[in-house]
Amino acid sequence: MLIAKVIGTTVSTIKDEKLTGRKLLIVRQTDEKGDPIGKPFVAVDTVNAGVGDLVLTAHGSSARQTTLTDQRPVDAVIMAMIDSLEVDGEITFQKG
Amino acid sequence: MLIAKVIGTTVSTIKDEKLTGRKLLIVRQTDEKGDPIGKPFVAVDTVNAGVGDLVLTAHGSSARQTTLTDQRPVDAVIMAMIDSLEVDGEITFQKG
Amino acid sequence: MLIAKVIGTTVSTIKDEKLTGRKLLIVRQTDEKGDPIGKPFVAVDTVNAGVGDLVLTAHGSSARQTTLTDQRPVDAVIMAMIDSLEVDGEITFQKG
Amino acid sequence: MLIAKVIGTTVSTIKDEKLTGRKLLIVRQTDEKGDPIGKPFVAVDTVNAGVGDLVLTAHGSSARQTTLTDQRPVDAVIMAMIDSLEVDGEITFQKG
Amino acid sequence: MLIAKVIGTTVSTIKDEKLTGRKLLIVRQTDEKGDPIGKPFVAVDTVNAGVGDLVLTAHGSSARQTTLTDQRPVDAVIMAMIDSLEVDGEITFQKG
Repeated sequence: MLIAKVIGTTVSTIKDEKLTGRKLLIVRQTDEKGDPIGKPFVAVDTVNAGVGDLVLTAHGSSARQTTLTDQRPVDAVIMAMIDSLEVDGEITFQKG
Repeated sequence: MLIAKVIGTTVSTIKDEKLTGRKLLIVRQTDEKGDPIGKPFVAVDTVNAGVGDLVLTAHGSSARQTTLTDQRPVDAVIMAMIDSLEVDGEITFQKG
Repeated sequence: MLIAKVIGTTVSTIKDEKLTGRKLLIVRQTDEKGDPIGKPFVAVDTVNAGVGDLVLTAHGSSARQTTLTDQRPVDAVIMAMIDSLEVDGEITFQKG
Repeated sequence: MLIAKVIGTTVSTIKDEKLTGRKLLIVRQTDEKGDPIGKPFVAVDTVNAGVGDLVLTAHGSSARQTTLTDQRPVDAVIMAMIDSLEVDGEITFQKG
Repeated sequence: MLIAKVIGTTVSTIKDEKLTGRKLLIVRQTDEKGDPIGKPFVAVDTVNAGVGDLVLTAHGSSARQTTLTDQRPVDAVIMAMIDSLEVDGEITFQKG
């Protein structure tokens, strides 16, 4: 899984019918402090995440192992909200 | 999923028989403003996309979870047209 | 899928028995003009491709969705020969 | 599989129900000496690993082939603790 | 598949029970001449390969399509020994 930050939202009217009602968020991978690194990608939200939240994302076929994503054409899912991260004994991120 | 822009088309006469009738478009990943970044790749169109459109693409086994791609040797699918993108409260892309 | 150019061949006597009779070609991803970029990889040929041909390759589990690759330990397949590529209204590649 | 070092821990209260009771560790890929390279990612622990341990991680659908991860939305798993690594006849890592 | 060179071995006492008896080798991707490029990774051996051998590796779910790896938490497998490689009509690698 990747540590990622939700940075935005997408709107799509024309899409595969299996995507109806799914919230597609724009996220960016972060480092262990929650600072974004790398390119933006889009993930299905399953935990009611919002812009600014730090989350975990699962990818590939693993992204389809939730009730909301089963058998759907999606390859990234937000499956957890991050409360805190600790690296080498120090808190590197704490939800505000 | 990736945010991607359709930049071109491919023509193939000799191909796996399961690809007959499928439209294979050339796309490039974009940033959250719709500006292309990275290398071109090829995806099956399922939403009647055309050159210049901003779309979402799903990859790997997830690309086979549509009616048009089920059990076919394709690893990327265009499964949504993007109307608009919003990042940190600002519209970064709006379909023309 | 990737646009790729066939650049060579491999010979393997000792291999998984499911690979018997499969032609394994060395290919490199190309840009939209057919110019190679990136590192070489090896793909199973299903369209009678040869060195110099521009082809499409499918990866991961999608590479096993052809008659020749079903249930075999291969993660890349050549599933189409490219006749031509067109980007932004101009022909960028035409088979010679 | 990747050679990786466990560098930290995550806490998530809101998450997919299938993740309940799973320990999610922050790891970084290492080279053959156990020195971290690349970005941090998160993996499910199945071998009682702790911060500082050198481990092997499996990714994608292969990460779901353990009792603890079967059918869960996780794409990386720690499936072995590394005792030692040997490269070109020399020990490059030995567990302390 | 990747062209890869076996560079070392791993020892793991504590591991997923499905890995018992499997030989896990350290390999690095090579170019078409057999010269290593990129980071080391670990693959299950199915062809009795040894340090110094040039091999082919399959990744992801395709790595589980051999008798030795079926349904196991491994994402890379050595499924062929390379005898020779030929690029653009010239032999670039020949087993010694």
